[in-house]
Amino acid sequence: MTQLSMYGILDKKKKSGELSTAEIQFFISGMMNGTIGDYQTAALLMAIYINGMTTAETADLTDAMLYSGTALSFDDPTVVDKHSTGGIGDKTSFILAPIAAACGVKVPMIAGRGLGFTGGTVDKAEAIPGFKTDLGLAEFERRIKENGIVMIGQTSEIAPADKKIYALRDVTATIESIPLITASIMSKKLAEGANGIVMDIKVGSGAFMKDRAQATELAKSIIGTAKRFDKKAVCMLTNMDQPLGNAVGHSLEIIECIDVLKGNGAEDLTLISLHLAAHMIHIAGITKTFDEALIRATQSVKDGTALAEFKKLIVDQDGNGNVVTDYSLLDVAPIKMEIIAQESGYIKSFINNEIGFMCTELGGGRKVITDTIDYGVGFYFHKKIGDKIEKGESIVTMYHRAEQQELAEQICDTFNYKIIEITKEPVSKVTSIIDLITE
Amino acid sequence: MTQLSMYGILDKKKKSGELSTAEIQFFISGMMNGTIGDYQTAALLMAIYINGMTTAETADLTDAMLYSGTALSFDDPTVVDKHSTGGIGDKTSFILAPIAAACGVKVPMIAGRGLGFTGGTVDKAEAIPGFKTDLGLAEFERRIKENGIVMIGQTSEIAPADKKIYALRDVTATIESIPLITASIMSKKLAEGANGIVMDIKVGSGAFMKDRAQATELAKSIIGTAKRFDKKAVCMLTNMDQPLGNAVGHSLEIIECIDVLKGNGAEDLTLISLHLAAHMIHIAGITKTFDEALIRATQSVKDGTALAEFKKLIVDQDGNGNVVTDYSLLDVAPIKMEIIAQESGYIKSFINNEIGFMCTELGGGRKVITDTIDYGVGFYFHKKIGDKIEKGESIVTMYHRAEQQELAEQICDTFNYKIIEITKEPVSKVTSIIDLITE
Repeated sequence: MTQLSMYGILDKKKKSGELSTAEIQFFISGMMNGTIGDYQTAALLMAIYINGMTTAETADLTDAMLYSGTALSFDDPTVVDKHSTGGIGDKTSFILAPIAAACGVKVPMIAGRGLGFTGGTVDKAEAIPGFKTDLGLAEFERRIKENGIVMIGQTSEIAPADKKIYALRDVTATIESIPLITASIMSKKLAEGANGIVMDIKVGSGAFMKDRAQATELAKSIIGTAKRFDKKAVCMLTNMDQPLGNAVGHSLEIIECIDVLKGNGAEDLTLISLHLAAHMIHIAGITKTFDEALIRATQSVKDGTALAEFKKLIVDQDGNGNVVTDYSLLDVAPIKMEIIAQESGYIKSFINNEIGFMCTELGGGRKVITDTIDYGVGFYFHKKIGDKIEKGESIVTMYHRAEQQELAEQICDTFNYKIIEITKEPVSKVTSIIDLITE
Repeated sequence: MTQLSMYGILDKKKKSGELSTAEIQFFISGMMNGTIGDYQTAALLMAIYINGMTTAETADLTDAMLYSGTALSFDDPTVVDKHSTGGIGDKTSFILAPIAAACGVKVPMIAGRGLGFTGGTVDKAEAIPGFKTDLGLAEFERRIKENGIVMIGQTSEIAPADKKIYALRDVTATIESIPLITASIMSKKLAEGANGIVMDIKVGSGAFMKDRAQATELAKSIIGTAKRFDKKAVCMLTNMDQPLGNAVGHSLEIIECIDVLKGNGAEDLTLISLHLAAHMIHIAGITKTFDEALIRATQSVKDGTALAEFKKLIVDQDGNGNVVTDYSLLDVAPIKMEIIAQESGYIKSFINNEIGFMCTELGGGRKVITDTIDYGVGFYFHKKIGDKIEKGESIVTMYHRAEQQELAEQICDTFNYKIIEITKEPVSKVTSIIDLITE
């Protein structure tokens, strides 16, 4: 057997060779203990980006990254998590997790913070007064077993190799690589002990995956990798050409989630959340069919058990559970500015990422990792793609602080002249759920 | 115009895009001033390795690297240099430079040191007692103008970007990239002020370029790049399946070079050196045709002017010029061990790199950059591929120190059982000059 070396690994991958299990383990352990330089890791990431990886390599990489930290394991098929590739207004975790939990799924959520135009689930949770997410991994494990639902922030105990690799991918233009994305997601989900995973792969102008073919490729990679670990996986492809639901901004999104759990939510957000929850219930083995799971999920909203589960989660994590009935407990910015249609017609498109950047401009996001977030600012969309609009009608309500008048006016202009496109010709509405990939 | 960023550059090259002049300059200047991290440079080198570069990009990279340091320039078409991709026993510089100089070419040699299995031209020069190579760039420039010939070691004043890039290529398995090799060679040759360049591209088991197609590709890249700088270039493809000439080892090689300059050299070494020198004379514009140049070169050996030129070069650089007549002034290891054929037959092949490693084992090379070299050790080959050999006849004489008896015996075994292959069937002799590429 030839001696392993990073040079040999680079030499093989640059020629599109398939790395062995031993080579991938050698790479990850060398990267973690510092014997492999960042420049070598960066060169390998670029070679992987360009030449790809087989399913076997992706599974090996997932495995090596997974065991770079603590790996939890639950001997319980009902431990099922969801992952989303992310998008503007994507807040489904706060809806599907209580629904799934109300139906008997154990939901181990380790979520991220926002940076740039992306919002973070943990940040949104912290918009709820008192809500704590830094519970530690031991407490996380205990709560899954006892409460069946918990949400914490990312911890260096889980897949630390992913953090290191992600930081290098971020500066070497190697983010959008199917095997690297797969290993990043799966290593974290498997390390948190999920026995099943439901993926929400966003497709569209505001998403990571710009087209359906790319999203399908990622779905197949996720499912193929899950299979090698004997885990169940289901991938839903959902639309991200416009914000999901109506609200963008931390407090506004929490309010919208509670509205959905009360049965009064936006159609697209409700549909996607119920379907994701139903897939979780189904692959957890709680129901025999997906249809049955969907009926259970819908019922949990109707009978209030899902909302009760959300309130219990909030209270369990030291948050003020009364927010579910009293929205005034959430900090919402006091000044409203209407973004008014300058012409009549149909909403043709939104530039989704720009909406995220505008929210960050208002203070509702981080430009650098140390920024603090204003939970109260944001946008409420009254119109969706395909909706008819009259000149003078409000398209979006902006929530901002009194001292932000000038900035708000600039953002208003940006919405009118850059973010929202209106045409005279009728435009089709968007299909929320694009595809379902299970095998 | 979009703002330049290393992220954008990486993003373009990973998708096989063509980098602009401004992007390549941004990369090299950022790399040199430290605003671009080694991990980003390494990722770009890998992307270039896999996706290649156009001739325009290669020329731009050459240009940016060339101007990362001092760029000399001579308003004199007769300033012509040679570059070799290197091989075992490759010592042609000491032969062709005096020949070319004797015929009116100005030869600006900036040469390297050896590491691993490769021998360095500067190290070989220093095997001549007193010979100095650390003259500095100002003195280098003066001597080209006044003496017409000079040989110095590599200096950080010339193309420092190449040194940095080469160090990263060395650890990221991105050495064998045609555009990166081209830019590395051409940036240095152009910075030293050469107006013409003759390339000796070695092809074969002991060479960087393993096959003729690869060597031809490099030749075309070199010529294409030279043309963009309005410089003349000629590439000779020569065989490297066996050591060039008969001697391997510093002092032994200097002696062999003097023998060639006296008209008593090995056939392959003499042929290749005369042809390379003739191409230099021809592209310097000294003769109208190559054939005329070859006659002039051959004549300079016959009439002793080439040897006189070599002696003058040695004396000019503080070396003992008497070595050209008194070989005992050179340090040659005193003990000879004959490597004896274990069977009769024909020499089929040599493992060339192993010969280099064996020379290093004896002390005639560096394992790490700080090692000192024993100039006296080495090998003298009595047989070439295709030669008939009788059992008991000496194939190679090894020169070693008295205290190296045991090591020498081990090396003897390595030659017999690993390096030299003998077969019963007759084997064809090797063609020294494989091809000539001029356009």
